[in-house]
Amino acid sequence: MAGVQVAVIGSGAEHEERAEAVGRLLAERGCTVVTGGLGEVMAAAARGAKSAGGVTIGVVPGEARGQASEWVDHEVVTGVGHARNLAVVASGDAVIAIGGRWGTLAEIAFAHVLERPVVILDPGLELEGVTRAGSPEEAVELALRLAGGAG
Amino acid sequence: MAGVQVAVIGSGAEHEERAEAVGRLLAERGCTVVTGGLGEVMAAAARGAKSAGGVTIGVVPGEARGQASEWVDHEVVTGVGHARNLAVVASGDAVIAIGGRWGTLAEIAFAHVLERPVVILDPGLELEGVTRAGSPEEAVELALRLAGGAG
Amino acid sequence: MAGVQVAVIGSGAEHEERAEAVGRLLAERGCTVVTGGLGEVMAAAARGAKSAGGVTIGVVPGEARGQASEWVDHEVVTGVGHARNLAVVASGDAVIAIGGRWGTLAEIAFAHVLERPVVILDPGLELEGVTRAGSPEEAVELALRLAGGAG
Amino acid sequence: MAGVQVAVIGSGAEHEERAEAVGRLLAERGCTVVTGGLGEVMAAAARGAKSAGGVTIGVVPGEARGQASEWVDHEVVTGVGHARNLAVVASGDAVIAIGGRWGTLAEIAFAHVLERPVVILDPGLELEGVTRAGSPEEAVELALRLAGGAG
Repeated sequence: MAGVQVAVIGSGAEHEERAEAVGRLLAERGCTVVTGGLGEVMAAAARGAKSAGGVTIGVVPGEARGQASEWVDHEVVTGVGHARNLAVVASGDAVIAIGGRWGTLAEIAFAHVLERPVVILDPGLELEGVTRAGSPEEAVELALRLAGGAG
Repeated sequence: MAGVQVAVIGSGAEHEERAEAVGRLLAERGCTVVTGGLGEVMAAAARGAKSAGGVTIGVVPGEARGQASEWVDHEVVTGVGHARNLAVVASGDAVIAIGGRWGTLAEIAFAHVLERPVVILDPGLELEGVTRAGSPEEAVELALRLAGGAG
Repeated sequence: MAGVQVAVIGSGAEHEERAEAVGRLLAERGCTVVTGGLGEVMAAAARGAKSAGGVTIGVVPGEARGQASEWVDHEVVTGVGHARNLAVVASGDAVIAIGGRWGTLAEIAFAHVLERPVVILDPGLELEGVTRAGSPEEAVELALRLAGGAG
Repeated sequence: MAGVQVAVIGSGAEHEERAEAVGRLLAERGCTVVTGGLGEVMAAAARGAKSAGGVTIGVVPGEARGQASEWVDHEVVTGVGHARNLAVVASGDAVIAIGGRWGTLAEIAFAHVLERPVVILDPGLELEGVTRAGSPEEAVELALRLAGGAG
């Protein structure tokens, strides 16, 4: 099986720049970037990864092919709606959360249930007991360390 | 279609007494109690509902029949693991959270995504922007009001 | 935990009369009728069960409350689209298939994967190695025998 | 979004050679091979694709990372058990079935529900109204034509 996969989750157009940086840094470290495949943070993380020649997976909620943004290399069409949030985080050796609201919170919670390490990039969701990072660089560094991967 | 359904979610043996009270009060108001079907808070809420002659649904994660506690009248076997958390809250016209940890947090988050009203019974998970209740009576009262149901 | 649950699956308006008979007979035997909650065969089976004072569960695919037909007592809202087919058959101690096309075939296949006994009511889907019944009475009789239940 | 994705489904050790040929031919045509990620036909199809330098996605049922065979480049961990069968076929622009039993039948059925073209490689499951192919070459040719892709 292949290398380290990191799930990047979140939402909010105001967080796209940092998401793009996270995606780019992950790709530079050789990680595959897994997202929910749609817009904003998800699209930005994939775009960043592609800008550094990385590989991107989009795990989308609907039933049709072609839901994913143009920066997704491989689209996994789950057909299970919001239950795909479970698959997004389960597919990561670590998870980085950027912005986000309730859907992101569900993903962070599922990540803990499945014992996937989570890093919240500041400013982000307030949640006790979750590792936080002050910059995209630190988020990627912490995620890879927690994933047990070297990148 | 039938009456008001309220999902009771959570975990923690120390919360069973209050969960049982919530289940009983919901049944007295004519509501069907939906839970994840397993132990602790889920079992206690179902037990409380049965003590008042109510009807209980258990939406269980595994693939086998017979996972649910003895206080569950109707067991819905989802076979989708933690993704069944989505079904538990989606099946409620309102949701009452008692104790709980990450799995409960995922359920509260999904409830918001699906616009189901949530009431957290104190002491419970700390989460901004969620209605809180100080007693089982208040939790049931608030849940039914938010559900738009009279009970 | 409560009594025997039988899943009734299928589609096709031309099969509604037989589905209603199956639902009624199951209710008369004390079984709870589980369906996918929507129209045609699903609605007819639930209607039949209600005509005999039975209890009906509808396991629906979408995210909203209120998708189920008026003959469904308890609506379980899965939010996982066609993946709810797995939950429908998993919730039955036995499964009776009436008419149906590809969705029903997926359910029969999942029932076999999960080792739930299946009875196809003739005329129905052609599928090797599945028990067949010539009448609603025989379908119910066989389903209950295979379920290990007396009804 | 990237190129054509073809789902290869099935089971049975006796079908591995043909599955490997299908995987290799798909990779030679530039397609990404999607499978359920596990053994036998799934592993063989992925192995064949890798032998031709292709890309492979494994959509696995459990919750842990590392379930997929060594020929899977990107593992999508769904956590939803057999409901992942829906995701496998939904992620294909076309589906090729090789051998298989009930799980494969569920996938073929879901493919039809979601209007994904299916090709059964002979000898394979008997099922009316599904396109059949007599060789791996023909199966790939038909799948790509039905997918609307040139490969």
